[in-house]
Amino acid sequence: MRDIRVGIIGFGTVGAGVVDCLLTNGELIANRTDMRPVVTRIADMDITTDRGVAVDPTLLTTDADAVVGADDIDVVVELVGGTTTAKTFILRALANGKPVVTANKALLADCGDEIFAAAEVSSADVYYEASVAGGIPIIKAMREGLVGNRITEIVGILNGTCNYILTRMEQESTSFDEVLGQAQAAGYAETPPDLDIDGIDTAHKATILASLAYGEWFGMEPLYVEGIRGLALRDIQYAANLGYRVKLLAVIKQCGADVQIRVHPTLIPHGSSLSHVHGVNNAVWVQGTPVGGTMYYGPGAGRDATASAVVADIVDVGLNLKFGSHRRVPAFRAHQGCAGVVPMADVETRYYLRLQVRNRAGVLAQIAGVLGESSISIASVHQQEIHGETAPLVILTYEAREANMQHAPVEIRELQVVSEDPVLIRIEDMP
Amino acid sequence: MRDIRVGIIGFGTVGAGVVDCLLTNGELIANRTDMRPVVTRIADMDITTDRGVAVDPTLLTTDADAVVGADDIDVVVELVGGTTTAKTFILRALANGKPVVTANKALLADCGDEIFAAAEVSSADVYYEASVAGGIPIIKAMREGLVGNRITEIVGILNGTCNYILTRMEQESTSFDEVLGQAQAAGYAETPPDLDIDGIDTAHKATILASLAYGEWFGMEPLYVEGIRGLALRDIQYAANLGYRVKLLAVIKQCGADVQIRVHPTLIPHGSSLSHVHGVNNAVWVQGTPVGGTMYYGPGAGRDATASAVVADIVDVGLNLKFGSHRRVPAFRAHQGCAGVVPMADVETRYYLRLQVRNRAGVLAQIAGVLGESSISIASVHQQEIHGETAPLVILTYEAREANMQHAPVEIRELQVVSEDPVLIRIEDMP
Repeated sequence: MRDIRVGIIGFGTVGAGVVDCLLTNGELIANRTDMRPVVTRIADMDITTDRGVAVDPTLLTTDADAVVGADDIDVVVELVGGTTTAKTFILRALANGKPVVTANKALLADCGDEIFAAAEVSSADVYYEASVAGGIPIIKAMREGLVGNRITEIVGILNGTCNYILTRMEQESTSFDEVLGQAQAAGYAETPPDLDIDGIDTAHKATILASLAYGEWFGMEPLYVEGIRGLALRDIQYAANLGYRVKLLAVIKQCGADVQIRVHPTLIPHGSSLSHVHGVNNAVWVQGTPVGGTMYYGPGAGRDATASAVVADIVDVGLNLKFGSHRRVPAFRAHQGCAGVVPMADVETRYYLRLQVRNRAGVLAQIAGVLGESSISIASVHQQEIHGETAPLVILTYEAREANMQHAPVEIRELQVVSEDPVLIRIEDMP
Repeated sequence: MRDIRVGIIGFGTVGAGVVDCLLTNGELIANRTDMRPVVTRIADMDITTDRGVAVDPTLLTTDADAVVGADDIDVVVELVGGTTTAKTFILRALANGKPVVTANKALLADCGDEIFAAAEVSSADVYYEASVAGGIPIIKAMREGLVGNRITEIVGILNGTCNYILTRMEQESTSFDEVLGQAQAAGYAETPPDLDIDGIDTAHKATILASLAYGEWFGMEPLYVEGIRGLALRDIQYAANLGYRVKLLAVIKQCGADVQIRVHPTLIPHGSSLSHVHGVNNAVWVQGTPVGGTMYYGPGAGRDATASAVVADIVDVGLNLKFGSHRRVPAFRAHQGCAGVVPMADVETRYYLRLQVRNRAGVLAQIAGVLGESSISIASVHQQEIHGETAPLVILTYEAREANMQHAPVEIRELQVVSEDPVLIRIEDMP
């Protein structure tokens, strides 16, 4: 039985969860793997607050170098978060030849290239299962379980906060602002909530998944990102009446030689696999050849779910140390999977378009005329009888080019037949 | 770039799928893993039938020893199926020190112990991702992705044929016999269909999952197995009216120091994760500590889905050969995860009980009396007005002991107030 000496930087919620898991299930893990992860040192700025786990106080230090540079540490677990000191710690650990486990999606999305290059130089492992979809072992599924597949599509619900907000808005007919406020009060949403609700966190995870599937570390630059801020309750309700549910999705799609990578609120059909994912859960739909469509579902965040993923990585690193098989599955290996990222303007998809139209003769004809001139085909039109000055008109389109679809509402606005800015939400007709 | 020379025994549907995948995606796999799987030899009794894949005819042989015993083969892929010659081939390959990839659930369920012991002696890998849930990488998730978790519950839809039959019965209000006949004609069900519809195939997979979770190779002996043969359409319909769907489930549950392992038709609530799994798909719900509930969904069988899993195993074996890390994740490692399997008589669960009762005064009182004496609490009673001689009475119970629940209907039958044998279906109130 070999001991793997684990050094942790960042003794916050997730750090405490990892320590708890290793203390509680350490014997089980040792029995299963013939390798025992032992928490040897924990670095944090605050080493006095009680984290609710029974840690020998002598393991605690405020000096991160006592983890990243110590001879008695086999694997460095970075749980600081953020893209500044966390990056420094990881690069220092790698420079010391130490393998790294991290849950830091923002850092990987922004600086993955640099970190992987450092790992290459030092021949050390970097594992990051916890960076995407919390407790769901989706990174392992992508890199190992589905390694024989050409990935044609990945569609994910990757942010629990947004999914919680959208679920409550739909189920309780409550406005975005009200649910967000309650979620912040209950600790389900951060303050400020921007990273989550503006889609940035989802995009961090989307770019990691896309990079693994297509063999190029894309970073954040080529992604189209739109969050759920200010999403109107009535659009969720209209969508429901038309048989759709609104989810914040990461959509990654092979498109000829290129790939689409985009994050935005999306209508998906009731009955589709992702439409059943409620609350803070995450799910990732992966379509591959030859496998077909598979889906991975579970808690996308939180102390315990994240700890499960971090511990799995610690075991992988530990086994690589035991067997001398480091970089058996490297942090990232570039391969020609696609030629480039499709500019958002060139993406073709279906759309939900809501217009608040004035009660005048010929309005529908004018609007349909603008859409037709923009090569946008109407799949269905939904308008109730107009009793007041204006009424909502909802149009679902067939596949249309994003550039055309962005332009048409501008022209429609100029017609003076609509009283508000048009609302545009993309549709994915997924299984 | 290292070549891994793959020898395949069994050039049937799955064998052809594996060859197709390696030919089509071989370059991609090589780019991703820096290791190239090369099909070097294929053994089958029939080497003349066209399998629809472009194979160099000189690779084909009728001599399995040219695979299991050849110096120029690095990994033996057993796709013969069955428990006789397949076992011989695997043991011979292991005796020659060759790692084995197999999709053979029946063989593992029946003779896993023997095969793993042989692998231990020869220090060779045995991988079997394709043995459970087809293209879903559930074995990898159990052994690696969730390695830090104490598994408290696994509930799976593991047989596509049964799920296809149940889905069509429900959606088209068609009888079991009719759907089975059509499924056989369309090639969705084997002839004879016994292994599938009697729950044996599900049990093979259930015992593999339970063994991985609890560290003891259980085999088939301790399992309770009941299939879907003769399941009445009206029970599916009554269940639907009560908010339940009927699925053939593998239920594996930690129960104190012991574990339940059982396979039977089961009522699960509409809205539960597994209730949305339709047609030939499989899904596995895994509840672990600390991770919580995760689910894995996808095609549970078929040429291409199975090929995806087999190829993932070939890559794992190949990487182990490349890095000298064989048995890094051993075929099976015994560990004390549970004390024993709960006898079915001691299982406590909820039940759906349907009685065809005669139109007489005091019938319900008599039945309720028998149930009460057997310590079975009634959760709800559903009876429509009786117009004819007899009418269906459906009772949902609270948790009751299986032994009591098996005995009560016998006593009820003796009351002479029911006109048919009672129907008993277990209920799982899962999320």
